[in-house]
Amino acid sequence: MSDRYDIAIVGSGPAGLSAAINAKIRNKDIIVFGSRDFSAKLIKAPKINNYLGFYNVTGEKLKEEFENHIKAMDISIKYERINAVYAIGDYFVLMVNEKMYEATSIILATGVEYTKPLKGEEEFLGKGVGYCATCDAPLYKGKTVAIVGYNDDAEEDTNFVNELASKTYYIPMYNGNYKLKDNIEIIKDKPIEIKGDMFVNKLLLKNCTIETDGVFILKDSVPPGQLVPGLEIEDGHIKTDRNMNTNIPGCFAAGDCVGKPYQYIKSAGEGQIASLSAVSYIDSLKNSRK
Amino acid sequence: MSDRYDIAIVGSGPAGLSAAINAKIRNKDIIVFGSRDFSAKLIKAPKINNYLGFYNVTGEKLKEEFENHIKAMDISIKYERINAVYAIGDYFVLMVNEKMYEATSIILATGVEYTKPLKGEEEFLGKGVGYCATCDAPLYKGKTVAIVGYNDDAEEDTNFVNELASKTYYIPMYNGNYKLKDNIEIIKDKPIEIKGDMFVNKLLLKNCTIETDGVFILKDSVPPGQLVPGLEIEDGHIKTDRNMNTNIPGCFAAGDCVGKPYQYIKSAGEGQIASLSAVSYIDSLKNSRK
Repeated sequence: MSDRYDIAIVGSGPAGLSAAINAKIRNKDIIVFGSRDFSAKLIKAPKINNYLGFYNVTGEKLKEEFENHIKAMDISIKYERINAVYAIGDYFVLMVNEKMYEATSIILATGVEYTKPLKGEEEFLGKGVGYCATCDAPLYKGKTVAIVGYNDDAEEDTNFVNELASKTYYIPMYNGNYKLKDNIEIIKDKPIEIKGDMFVNKLLLKNCTIETDGVFILKDSVPPGQLVPGLEIEDGHIKTDRNMNTNIPGCFAAGDCVGKPYQYIKSAGEGQIASLSAVSYIDSLKNSRK
Repeated sequence: MSDRYDIAIVGSGPAGLSAAINAKIRNKDIIVFGSRDFSAKLIKAPKINNYLGFYNVTGEKLKEEFENHIKAMDISIKYERINAVYAIGDYFVLMVNEKMYEATSIILATGVEYTKPLKGEEEFLGKGVGYCATCDAPLYKGKTVAIVGYNDDAEEDTNFVNELASKTYYIPMYNGNYKLKDNIEIIKDKPIEIKGDMFVNKLLLKNCTIETDGVFILKDSVPPGQLVPGLEIEDGHIKTDRNMNTNIPGCFAAGDCVGKPYQYIKSAGEGQIASLSAVSYIDSLKNSRK
């Protein structure tokens, strides 16, 4: 029972980190899921002038300041990608492939994906298109699978799928060393469209076509509507009120994933609000149990 | 005509300053009204841990960082207290005693007053109770006035009222040198209640009672509902939507004055949103005039 966290924070950009420090100050038991870079967007920013207190800093420098801050408060980041979150009565289960974490409340700070869906991606979602290769791998035992990977995290998932699939194609959307099993076929080409009848049967690329039973698209983050079944989305963003409540009790959201403007200190401010709302939620649950 | 600013920002706490830097980055012509300390609350904070990027800083230190930031961007603060704001068609007039400023849009970042109203204060508001001594001074020509002053800014106003009133009492709520005309009577006592029939006729203090025709209460900031006639207030805070729009077109608000939690980075985030909303508002006005 002691393995249930008070708050699980999904995302390590300014919203997630701001949520983390505020929850920690309020003495909550937290876990933060994110990446070594914190935020791919942040570290690439050449110059930031609009985060009050820091003038003319690079994204790399601001990331360093954030890192110093969380380290000083003894907050660490779990470098794992959450594939799915389920609301189970008064707590949540977070899935990382086969691993499970439990938390009383969650804060979604997953950012936004700038990549557009492929043609056919939404149409065939759940009919051969998936975002969690390891979750759905058993469905493709003895079949052909194509995996579109946006970063090297996807390689481990691909190796896992390959143990079950009869044929695995890997289409990397980045340059790297590709640590893949020898029998996985790497195709350096641009995916264009997913085709099929009832189910997927083809992935069209710019220069070739793959016959396949399934297509996994492994981006930096899973779209929040996919991540948390039942989560209300409005105009492509998680719908929240002013206190950063979503439609699911105990589930809060902050940062780019809840809407524009896509800005760092807006996200940090919302992360703080979401965190304090989560703290109130947890305390009210505890009080109602007394 | 060139004297009309794009954006007037009322308040120099984290919300006001964050609004200022964002508007400046977007090349808007701004004016910021505030105080030398930026925020009385901020500079008194002994330790701040929850502003992402700064760990274990004093409020004084954070104020310094904010100051460096705005100075580097060539933003200065006008040390004047706005007494009233009027929406005049497609622009706003801001009153500082007899002085007037014009702006196409305004951002209210006035913070919150922690002092409770006196007994009778709300009942007699406009019937002998006022928040702008210099605005209403002519009403008290040849009459008796009591002024409750929360800081030394109130002294100048009191001297001005005293030129018209037949008798002026000054009740300072702070310690200081009180630069007041000789015929002003200083009473060091705690105000308890304002009494009257149709209009004010008495101010009850802890140890004495003053017969008076008017009571001015000069706090650090004028309550926003008083400051901007017609502004919608909900539960004691300015009502805004997620984009920090108030009910008045062109009037935005951010920070403690729009609601809890009363926290620095929440305010800075909202200041940024309010600023970008004001920028869009101004640009849409300009485009519609083309």
